[in-house]
Amino acid sequence: MGGNTFGKIFRMMSFGESHNVAIGVVVDGVPAGMPLSEADVQRELDRRRPGQSIVTTPRAERDRVEILSGVFEGKTLGTPICMLVRNVDVDSSPYEAIKTKPRPGHVELPYWLKFGHIDHRGGGRGAARETIARVAAGAIAKKLLAAHGIEVLGHTVEAAGVAVGREVKPDEIRKNVEKNPMRCADLGVAERMKEEVLKASEAGDSTGGVVEVLALNVPAGLGDPVFDKLDAEIAHALMSIGSVKGVEIGAGFMATRMRGSEMNDPLALRRGKIVSLTNNAGGILGGISTGMPIVARIAVKPTPSITKPQRTVDIARMEEVELKLKGRFDPNICPRIVPVAEAMLAIVLADQMLRAGKIDPNRFEVRK
Amino acid sequence: MGGNTFGKIFRMMSFGESHNVAIGVVVDGVPAGMPLSEADVQRELDRRRPGQSIVTTPRAERDRVEILSGVFEGKTLGTPICMLVRNVDVDSSPYEAIKTKPRPGHVELPYWLKFGHIDHRGGGRGAARETIARVAAGAIAKKLLAAHGIEVLGHTVEAAGVAVGREVKPDEIRKNVEKNPMRCADLGVAERMKEEVLKASEAGDSTGGVVEVLALNVPAGLGDPVFDKLDAEIAHALMSIGSVKGVEIGAGFMATRMRGSEMNDPLALRRGKIVSLTNNAGGILGGISTGMPIVARIAVKPTPSITKPQRTVDIARMEEVELKLKGRFDPNICPRIVPVAEAMLAIVLADQMLRAGKIDPNRFEVRK
Amino acid sequence: MGGNTFGKIFRMMSFGESHNVAIGVVVDGVPAGMPLSEADVQRELDRRRPGQSIVTTPRAERDRVEILSGVFEGKTLGTPICMLVRNVDVDSSPYEAIKTKPRPGHVELPYWLKFGHIDHRGGGRGAARETIARVAAGAIAKKLLAAHGIEVLGHTVEAAGVAVGREVKPDEIRKNVEKNPMRCADLGVAERMKEEVLKASEAGDSTGGVVEVLALNVPAGLGDPVFDKLDAEIAHALMSIGSVKGVEIGAGFMATRMRGSEMNDPLALRRGKIVSLTNNAGGILGGISTGMPIVARIAVKPTPSITKPQRTVDIARMEEVELKLKGRFDPNICPRIVPVAEAMLAIVLADQMLRAGKIDPNRFEVRK
Amino acid sequence: MGGNTFGKIFRMMSFGESHNVAIGVVVDGVPAGMPLSEADVQRELDRRRPGQSIVTTPRAERDRVEILSGVFEGKTLGTPICMLVRNVDVDSSPYEAIKTKPRPGHVELPYWLKFGHIDHRGGGRGAARETIARVAAGAIAKKLLAAHGIEVLGHTVEAAGVAVGREVKPDEIRKNVEKNPMRCADLGVAERMKEEVLKASEAGDSTGGVVEVLALNVPAGLGDPVFDKLDAEIAHALMSIGSVKGVEIGAGFMATRMRGSEMNDPLALRRGKIVSLTNNAGGILGGISTGMPIVARIAVKPTPSITKPQRTVDIARMEEVELKLKGRFDPNICPRIVPVAEAMLAIVLADQMLRAGKIDPNRFEVRK
Repeated sequence: MGGNTFGKIFRMMSFGESHNVAIGVVVDGVPAGMPLSEADVQRELDRRRPGQSIVTTPRAERDRVEILSGVFEGKTLGTPICMLVRNVDVDSSPYEAIKTKPRPGHVELPYWLKFGHIDHRGGGRGAARETIARVAAGAIAKKLLAAHGIEVLGHTVEAAGVAVGREVKPDEIRKNVEKNPMRCADLGVAERMKEEVLKASEAGDSTGGVVEVLALNVPAGLGDPVFDKLDAEIAHALMSIGSVKGVEIGAGFMATRMRGSEMNDPLALRRGKIVSLTNNAGGILGGISTGMPIVARIAVKPTPSITKPQRTVDIARMEEVELKLKGRFDPNICPRIVPVAEAMLAIVLADQMLRAGKIDPNRFEVRK
Repeated sequence: MGGNTFGKIFRMMSFGESHNVAIGVVVDGVPAGMPLSEADVQRELDRRRPGQSIVTTPRAERDRVEILSGVFEGKTLGTPICMLVRNVDVDSSPYEAIKTKPRPGHVELPYWLKFGHIDHRGGGRGAARETIARVAAGAIAKKLLAAHGIEVLGHTVEAAGVAVGREVKPDEIRKNVEKNPMRCADLGVAERMKEEVLKASEAGDSTGGVVEVLALNVPAGLGDPVFDKLDAEIAHALMSIGSVKGVEIGAGFMATRMRGSEMNDPLALRRGKIVSLTNNAGGILGGISTGMPIVARIAVKPTPSITKPQRTVDIARMEEVELKLKGRFDPNICPRIVPVAEAMLAIVLADQMLRAGKIDPNRFEVRK
Repeated sequence: MGGNTFGKIFRMMSFGESHNVAIGVVVDGVPAGMPLSEADVQRELDRRRPGQSIVTTPRAERDRVEILSGVFEGKTLGTPICMLVRNVDVDSSPYEAIKTKPRPGHVELPYWLKFGHIDHRGGGRGAARETIARVAAGAIAKKLLAAHGIEVLGHTVEAAGVAVGREVKPDEIRKNVEKNPMRCADLGVAERMKEEVLKASEAGDSTGGVVEVLALNVPAGLGDPVFDKLDAEIAHALMSIGSVKGVEIGAGFMATRMRGSEMNDPLALRRGKIVSLTNNAGGILGGISTGMPIVARIAVKPTPSITKPQRTVDIARMEEVELKLKGRFDPNICPRIVPVAEAMLAIVLADQMLRAGKIDPNRFEVRK
Repeated sequence: MGGNTFGKIFRMMSFGESHNVAIGVVVDGVPAGMPLSEADVQRELDRRRPGQSIVTTPRAERDRVEILSGVFEGKTLGTPICMLVRNVDVDSSPYEAIKTKPRPGHVELPYWLKFGHIDHRGGGRGAARETIARVAAGAIAKKLLAAHGIEVLGHTVEAAGVAVGREVKPDEIRKNVEKNPMRCADLGVAERMKEEVLKASEAGDSTGGVVEVLALNVPAGLGDPVFDKLDAEIAHALMSIGSVKGVEIGAGFMATRMRGSEMNDPLALRRGKIVSLTNNAGGILGGISTGMPIVARIAVKPTPSITKPQRTVDIARMEEVELKLKGRFDPNICPRIVPVAEAMLAIVLADQMLRAGKIDPNRFEVRK
């Protein structure tokens, strides 16, 4: 059963394999009349692109997006928006040598077990290139949210064992994230992260980390209990990103060691509005947004592609072999996951805003 | 937008509020001809029931299930199965006093912000009683899975800061979990957990913990990339349980500090079958099951209802007040979440087994 | 794959078999705060009930509805509403004799081919009693629509070959339909219909007819092209009713013999509003409501249960046999289908109103 | 709410507007390993193309399909298949003159009322070009069905008031349909149809008709009562095609004038198999396929674009005006709807075959 559709009203269907013709996505449910250009989408895609720094793979993928439908004279039509990125200069030859040797920790083996074949060319549908579709759809979601005052931010809070270890202000994120290759909001910590990442990389190894995403100015009342709670859908969306092994909201796993009296966010009045004095809930209680910032973190595992020798099985000969990958891989995927995680959070929120009747489903209008 | 449906083929819709007439669930998509009795469901419900031990609330809820449809002469008909549990001896009077004073960390405030009213009587739809529906549906899922050789297990791995801290064997879980009030697989650790839980409870406070669920003998190939990956759906299902603030698969957040060479599970041949020598992946790679055990853990926050005084806002008068709850509450919810988490995992797997064509959707048959 | 869910936002899941414990439905997606009582639902159920007249079966089914959830102090909570009708005084013994002899034109054979069993007791899930769930859900939909000014009407326009043959005014429908056993808006025609129905009935035979449903005051802009067009969803909803073999919108099959210049409804201005001077479109163009009345008609086949001898196959012995049914059956099902068809149209419209943002999904408010 | 997704397992999302960049569709849920080429799809698209005969519009649309994903080395990958047809030589200038004058019977007005704008360029998303996506997806569905022995056929049974008026054999359809511009299975009738169509066309007018689609060799047991019955989904699919105002199954509206003893198809044994001696049911009882041929007919209204003067409203000036269209339009759309209706029926059946577990969802294999 195909699992390539996401969202109920703001709904996308993505397609495309690495090393095949193209990657793309169709986004349905965007109200008519919203200004949208290819440049809006390209800006986000450029953040996702590899080769931006020494901690990510130096492959120069030129990912130019083309909008094929749903936009006319610079505005959305209310019809599905198809966005396409062609795969150019694809070289699948390095993958020939490992065609029958699934990489440990990678998608080849389970794809083979499921579909009876391996699309060995760079991971096919299981490759990171698939996230182009998410980022493109996320760009539209972000634009729609921004018109309603909602901002989505992301940053690396830990990488290769080096953690920021303190709360950072939204302004630090806005100011610093694009200034360093780790997409960390603390420039000093970023430097140490980078050192540790490179140290592992030089040893032919990879590292993981933790990425945090936030949404500011989200109205109270989003989320559909009891199964489509806001946190449940955020968990679904973020866990669906490759390499993610955990998701937590607010205090998350830290909450397990707190007492109720510490965890419960006290309620108070500020300028006639009910607020909580802390935000251990991460902006969500009972699956419904409270009006406080939404805060989610994801556990990013170390990139599975490493040059150190690994044990695997040659599935053609059914014998154990040693695998020695050649080439250059992302030593740490966290900085590239930041825009993808932002996109997925934005998509969930755009969908929930529409479902909660807070965005008109047919006609775009900026609400104050 | 109602969010009370879950699953694509094995699909349930749940209903009911605490302190209203009844809680129930309709389960659609169960093949015809599967033996099913109320006793099958009651067994699981009894595990969820409060009042089983000193660490859970002593309210004596008699939760008798009645099957209203979908079963005839002891076998499923292939039609929707409605299961009903009436709420009996409901006393909403304790909630009158706090009617306009939302409990911090609780669902009342966000429900009020969303729907414009508070169903103050024991939390209404946001109360833990809602999980009766999950456990009842899960009982059917478990039975269907068991006929196909799949076993689902759950246990508390940490509570009130006391952790098991070692891998436990499935046999320990099977043997010990129902022998202690914490539903911990290690009886010694269980004892210490209980002590810490009671210590906090005596101080008018509550504690959290970590629950682990496993599925054994799951075939490779379940999961629908890229959005309905197996881990994404498990995260959705588990995060939708009240009080859960985090979900992790396999090594989870530990993976963020490992290197690729440690995290990647080496592949090998054992009796002609490809296996991994470790299971950091938790049985899922690229969103598809690998044939290794599925392992997921959830972060359970401390129960929000505590007797310690707390700051809140009276929403009728719009003024800050102190809230002092009376009564007895679950000092630690982990043991009662164990069967709920098992149920949700079983529901996801039953649905995925059907979607992968590994269970016939129309006619029940035991496959070897 | 269970097919017992209908609707996207206003969503119901129905359950229950004739001659089993109960029939019921859960309705999700109803905004909080709408007044709703069991009497509101009972009124519609009473119209569906058999035994109301000589042209329908004289079985006295007492169908008392009980609301189990989603309503508190006379108002909806925004949570799922479960409505239950118990099957009482069920006598399945008449069906014992024909247990292995599927009735021609009836559901037993296909159910057996699909599920491997026959729930022979009065048709099980395939029986007309299933429509109780539709009518109950429809009662809620109608109430929600009425609060937004939309009225749904139904009437028999042809039965046993006797047709009304002229356009009737909404007022005739409102005034006359409940005054005659055929639910026909023209009392003279109704009389002739009844005579023809009884004539066939006395010959041990049954008759069919045509039922029309209308919705007045539907705003323009409902319908989601290109697959969830308003007419496509109405066709889906109406064709899902047992015994319906055709659906048409506006001029319907008559349109096939018209020329474009006759069919196209001319546009004009009336009091500053764009209207069409005719309504061959039946209120829907390009799958979107135009603001004119929605008009749909369904082809109702003659009731398959007849007392005339029929050829069938004994599936236990696999031999051809003659089947001679005893008992009293509906000689003409049209009048009982009227409230069911109204219900399905109301459900589609309530869902579309929510999807189009014309009804707030969370909080009920009467809009002018 | 976007309505551009169709199907549950075999699921498509279509996109694109007439006179914009491209039309396309993404098809998810196709098993891996099925042979598929652009030629397979092109063949069906060529049947849909205008300009094939004097009864359809002479515009020469070159509709070349490109497969962008989901196929590798001539076989499907189990991943979504995106198919794209670029709009070439688009000339929107003829539409400038009628930009603010919605054509009666056409989609412009309801689109404007819904989305607040008119994509006047040839109807935009509401134009017949949208059906390219349906036909492309249908080509895949047909291929999948053919591998499982199921054949889908379509033909015009009435046009411009000229009806075939007798049952035609599948062989006549296979042999004659592509031999005449009306896609009629009876060549003599086809000639008379054409004459009547041209007569109306010369008078600046258009005509409608009836198209029949059949599916042969469909196994018993498809269809998911009570809402996703096979006939309900076929009605949904066919009614979603532009210009369709009615759908009927088997005897359809004729059934309303039959008695039960005529309508009920008698059951008998033929070579040890239960068959019905007639097929008034059109292969579907209780929403489930019986094993007999599936038969559905649709009412096609006369093409709304005619050159005769019509009354409309200038929505910019809000005044009544006369509209006089120039150019050449399809005088009768039936022959072009034949492949579209076949496609929609094939898509419903492919989806239902997968849902019924009769096609493996992951790996393609030809079953005997």
